Amino acid sequence: MSANLNPNVDPNLDAKDLHPVSLRMASDTLVVQEVSPRDGLQIEPKWVETADKIALIDSLSQLGFTRIEAGSFVSPKAIPALRDGDEVFRGIRRVPGVTYVALIPNAKGAERALAARADELNLVMSASQTHNRANMRMSCENSLAGFGDIVGLVQGARVSLNGTVATAFGCPFEGRIDDNRVLHLVDAYRELDIGGITLADTTGMANPRQVTRLVARVLDLVPASALTLHFHDTRGLGLANVLAAYEAGARRFDASLGGLGGCPFAPGASGNICTEDLVNLCDEMEIPNTIDLARLLPLSRTLPALVGHEVPGQVAKAGRNTDLHPAPAYVAEIA
Amino acid sequence: MSANLNPNVDPNLDAKDLHPVSLRMASDTLVVQEVSPRDGLQIEPKWVETADKIALIDSLSQLGFTRIEAGSFVSPKAIPALRDGDEVFRGIRRVPGVTYVALIPNAKGAERALAARADELNLVMSASQTHNRANMRMSCENSLAGFGDIVGLVQGARVSLNGTVATAFGCPFEGRIDDNRVLHLVDAYRELDIGGITLADTTGMANPRQVTRLVARVLDLVPASALTLHFHDTRGLGLANVLAAYEAGARRFDASLGGLGGCPFAPGASGNICTEDLVNLCDEMEIPNTIDLARLLPLSRTLPALVGHEVPGQVAKAGRNTDLHPAPAYVAEIA
Repeated sequence: MSANLNPNVDPNLDAKDLHPVSLRMASDTLVVQEVSPRDGLQIEPKWVETADKIALIDSLSQLGFTRIEAGSFVSPKAIPALRDGDEVFRGIRRVPGVTYVALIPNAKGAERALAARADELNLVMSASQTHNRANMRMSCENSLAGFGDIVGLVQGARVSLNGTVATAFGCPFEGRIDDNRVLHLVDAYRELDIGGITLADTTGMANPRQVTRLVARVLDLVPASALTLHFHDTRGLGLANVLAAYEAGARRFDASLGGLGGCPFAPGASGNICTEDLVNLCDEMEIPNTIDLARLLPLSRTLPALVGHEVPGQVAKAGRNTDLHPAPAYVAEIA
Repeated sequence: MSANLNPNVDPNLDAKDLHPVSLRMASDTLVVQEVSPRDGLQIEPKWVETADKIALIDSLSQLGFTRIEAGSFVSPKAIPALRDGDEVFRGIRRVPGVTYVALIPNAKGAERALAARADELNLVMSASQTHNRANMRMSCENSLAGFGDIVGLVQGARVSLNGTVATAFGCPFEGRIDDNRVLHLVDAYRELDIGGITLADTTGMANPRQVTRLVARVLDLVPASALTLHFHDTRGLGLANVLAAYEAGARRFDASLGGLGGCPFAPGASGNICTEDLVNLCDEMEIPNTIDLARLLPLSRTLPALVGHEVPGQVAKAGRNTDLHPAPAYVAEIA
């Protein structure tokens, strides 16, 4: 965050103010939802201690994020890396103005998330029938029916709902996904009174031309303030897709610190787009955002020790453009 | 290359036709200049045998490239990895229609490149005085004076000239580079009758907004057919910058197989943009190009064995969107 590029954010604000950042956002602010505690960690083979997860989320809460996906309430058999979702949500120090999101697959997960006081429940289904069967172990129709039960369950609770359309830009089993299929599922979520929508490029198959087209169509149904784009960098197009979506009017983007998160089908390939690379893009292009990049980079550099391997993010390795290098000594001698 | 997306390329053409591809290029064709044999290999600590360099270039010559930067004629002390430039240029099997480019720093290099029958000489200087002193060990003024000598030297030879403005989008020592400084150097090259111009983002500091602006200004001075953009992916913006430049009218782009090449200031950070990731972007967005991606990917996958480490390219790991995966067996059982 360059202070002078974000006139909408009062530099004197304190975390104790209620929703300090979100109330001051301009309509062109790019909102970064940090997903490393959930989408980033879920694929890691090395167990990350509950205390370390909490410390990561607490650090992120101090850096200007208004939305953090802090964990999931999935079967511990399916995602053992996140089996401590309850303790994580109970252990974090909540900062006013930050929405702590939980991913849930079903009514049981919703009950656990409510008990753990998640601010928002993120429901997920795939646009692709095959991917939904592979990932959720049920048909798309059964997923939607289950979501209806969840909507009933949370009635009256202080929680908001978000519906994710996974494989919205392509499926690793089925290939191309028709835009109309995605729009149909967006409609289905809206009919269930699920306020937020995420379009997820689950395995990094989107391209900017496709993104421009689909985002424009979805923004006819969903206000920009309620639409999130979730891109993976599997084929190197993550940030190009963000720019295409932003130019088409989208404002909210999922990203993962260090680019943490992987692709189960492509060993070595990148997963989620990298938060600090996205914030660096915004700062360099003067796109308003609320994230403190100078303090985010040292946090990202703690990740390799946490997960036990290098992470894909570039700016944490290369530094910002403004991090200049000293010239070699011999330069002074050259005419 | 999807055959139906490249109506300008006759699928029945044979390499023995003279300049088969370039004569049939549409004005919206994105031209990829492959630079892995030069910019890719020059930073590699492991010696790559001359025969392996020649084999790499010969393979690339069969895949639709019209321009390959095949080596450099720099002091073997400065760049030991490329000290065999003469043997490489003498050993390759030249395919008609492919321009084999050599990077040269000075008149001595130009003489060696002419003797080795390079088709084009690529001269390099930096927009930044400090970077030019660090990299070329002379001032920008002395670089330009030397280029004047080279222009005299090659008069009458069957060779074309290209002038690169390095650090055109930012300098790791000086920071921001004024657009007018870049335009001044473009003018200086043109006054020396140097036909081709490359704008190089040497350490990956460019952003799409800056690229749009600078490319538009340079295209007032240089025709698109003579302008090359050279991006590095050091901060994750390489392909986004390509798209911005293409939309601003640029058509020629340097790229390196596997994303080979590094950044001396950022260990672990990516170097050149990756050829196959760029071609994949073009194919997915239906941007005409002449490269055979299906045959390029297996070639890229030989690089880790050649250089002794993983390379940054994504599509070689993830596969193309059309490389579908079999669904898990249990999917068939799910209602």
